[in-house]
Amino acid sequence: MKIENVDFFYLSMPQILDIGDGSQDALLVRVRAGDYEGWGECEAAPLPSIAAWCCPKSHSACKPVCDSVLNQNVEDARDIIRIGDLVRENSLDLLQAEHTLSGIDMALWDLLGKKLEQPVYKLLGYQNSFPKNPYASVLFGDTPQETLQKARNARAMGYQAGKFGWGPIGRSTVEADRDQFHAAREGLGDDGILLVDAGTVWIDDVKAAAARIPALEECRAVWLEEPFVSGAIQSYAALAKQCKTVKLAGGEGSHNVWMARQMMQHGGVGFIQIDAGRIGGISPSKQVADDAAAQGVTYVNHTFTSHLALSASLQPFAGLENDVICEYPVEPKSLAVEMTKNRVERDENGLVRAPEAPGLGIEPDLAAIKKYLVPLEISVRGETLYRTPEL
Amino acid sequence: MKIENVDFFYLSMPQILDIGDGSQDALLVRVRAGDYEGWGECEAAPLPSIAAWCCPKSHSACKPVCDSVLNQNVEDARDIIRIGDLVRENSLDLLQAEHTLSGIDMALWDLLGKKLEQPVYKLLGYQNSFPKNPYASVLFGDTPQETLQKARNARAMGYQAGKFGWGPIGRSTVEADRDQFHAAREGLGDDGILLVDAGTVWIDDVKAAAARIPALEECRAVWLEEPFVSGAIQSYAALAKQCKTVKLAGGEGSHNVWMARQMMQHGGVGFIQIDAGRIGGISPSKQVADDAAAQGVTYVNHTFTSHLALSASLQPFAGLENDVICEYPVEPKSLAVEMTKNRVERDENGLVRAPEAPGLGIEPDLAAIKKYLVPLEISVRGETLYRTPEL
Repeated sequence: MKIENVDFFYLSMPQILDIGDGSQDALLVRVRAGDYEGWGECEAAPLPSIAAWCCPKSHSACKPVCDSVLNQNVEDARDIIRIGDLVRENSLDLLQAEHTLSGIDMALWDLLGKKLEQPVYKLLGYQNSFPKNPYASVLFGDTPQETLQKARNARAMGYQAGKFGWGPIGRSTVEADRDQFHAAREGLGDDGILLVDAGTVWIDDVKAAAARIPALEECRAVWLEEPFVSGAIQSYAALAKQCKTVKLAGGEGSHNVWMARQMMQHGGVGFIQIDAGRIGGISPSKQVADDAAAQGVTYVNHTFTSHLALSASLQPFAGLENDVICEYPVEPKSLAVEMTKNRVERDENGLVRAPEAPGLGIEPDLAAIKKYLVPLEISVRGETLYRTPEL
Repeated sequence: MKIENVDFFYLSMPQILDIGDGSQDALLVRVRAGDYEGWGECEAAPLPSIAAWCCPKSHSACKPVCDSVLNQNVEDARDIIRIGDLVRENSLDLLQAEHTLSGIDMALWDLLGKKLEQPVYKLLGYQNSFPKNPYASVLFGDTPQETLQKARNARAMGYQAGKFGWGPIGRSTVEADRDQFHAAREGLGDDGILLVDAGTVWIDDVKAAAARIPALEECRAVWLEEPFVSGAIQSYAALAKQCKTVKLAGGEGSHNVWMARQMMQHGGVGFIQIDAGRIGGISPSKQVADDAAAQGVTYVNHTFTSHLALSASLQPFAGLENDVICEYPVEPKSLAVEMTKNRVERDENGLVRAPEAPGLGIEPDLAAIKKYLVPLEISVRGETLYRTPEL
């Protein structure tokens, strides 16, 4: 089957709030080849990602992503890997390319699964899709009282695990952060699984991060996520040495497998968190999951958007029986909720699994999302390179 | 002075060839604040970089670069550092942002130097701009005979050092590559400084790269550049252990200081090559130069475009007396040649220095480059976000 069409749909809430909520817009990708179509989602800035798809060539290692995708043949899994390698080679100097590739790679796996009538995790070589314990992923409240309420809500909704992130953490005092951590613990209850996400607030400042470790350990936090930016491996390594019970988690900023490998080999993280919508799709995510399993690092998906992205992010570690924690967005904006007709629902035990249906097993709801579609047009030398297609 | 205006000029040759020549297009940046203007250049895909400047906000950590630059105050060097930090924080999830920032940071240093009547290297804390030995940076010929001629031409033009890159290297046999290396050595003569650039052709395959080391050492190559992609630190480290006399060089793909640090700390490179047009500008380049000096790694600029980019790339290591090798493009396309009224010329000894004039000391030739200007328009929801400005 030849890849005949790749379409990008930029969707957005009418208003974008200045908060760390990635579900406020989306870049949905549709790939068509032969009689099949597949869907994916870039967890990325929509306009620059579309520009990386269609921009004019700069030189042999700075080509638009479309040059390596359109008209390629896709018959089996090796073709998807080959197309990803082509994009990385031909767009080596186009920084945004790996974010654009992410949604395309997902859509190709979805398409191939539909053609072969197999769920993606089986195409990846797994026999089973094991249950995962979803954690409610929410933002810290502005006050400890608000955080306490959010944690209680998470338990009331049946989640045993809760992750609290961003918001005020790291922006005032160590004591203020301690109060927030304790509020989250109190709301989750003694048997809750507490996870904390600092949202890279300390950049690479080990001392500032280390000052929060005692409070996190008092509250029995399982992990401290992203104290630093993804590249600050030396800071991760230094902080990891100062932790007794809490482990470090990170990796969502990885836009290729090598970045994730460095976090595991040199950064001392106990949990590697991969967003299939950023690292280049499901293919490199699976490579990281293999590496993590070999090194005793726990793989966790990073997902803050739709259930299409969630299914894609579950596939790479669906077959890893012992890696049971999974991120599960519980406060997404209506756009992310309405984007799909079906969802990755929790079962009677509150657990989730990668779907058994062919491909990613999630169907976009085109009628519902029409109202979120953002008309966009890019023209170069008077010629239209991209115009938002019909949904 | 408030930053009032930032304009991007996408320039391109009429035809882009499928070769590793980055001088075929350019993204020139003009920043205006108070009574001053500064110029910089992103060594990056123009359309995606412009999109990263003006795209709609996605969430609090995925904002367009303009949000962190326009209306900022710039009075001294600390303001430029602060603005870069703001961009990295507010555009954390916008992958292309650091390429966009690169040209802006350069232009801010140029502007500040003009205001303070100082060359940029002095604003960076250096007392002197030491002479550098420019190497002729050319692509390998398709045949050894062609490479031999290119090397002879480099000597005839007065260059003692020559770097040969990309083209057929790594794409056929070890023997074919050996013939190319010997041709380059023969053309440069016994006392020439031979540098070889593999252009990431082996991706992360240590065995394939190691097979070329004996021939490189026979030919007394000083460095082997980019055998692997920037992230493949483990492969760099493994290959470095197999080298006796040749050293590894790399780093041009670094889009932040942390990536460069990993190459130095874990990758075993002897030369760290930084493109100020990709790493986020002159500010992070200077941080890498400081780190390199502290660790005994030699800093080298990466420059394949105009003399505006060359001046910007020389500033961060202008004051490092012992880091004498510098990349100097000798086969640029007419666009890069015509882009500036003056150039970083070689002196009577064939050496070059960062200019003594205020700022970057290089003046764009607006009349000459008008013919290369690419009309571009981006509109979202019917509103024009960007239209190529008048030059």
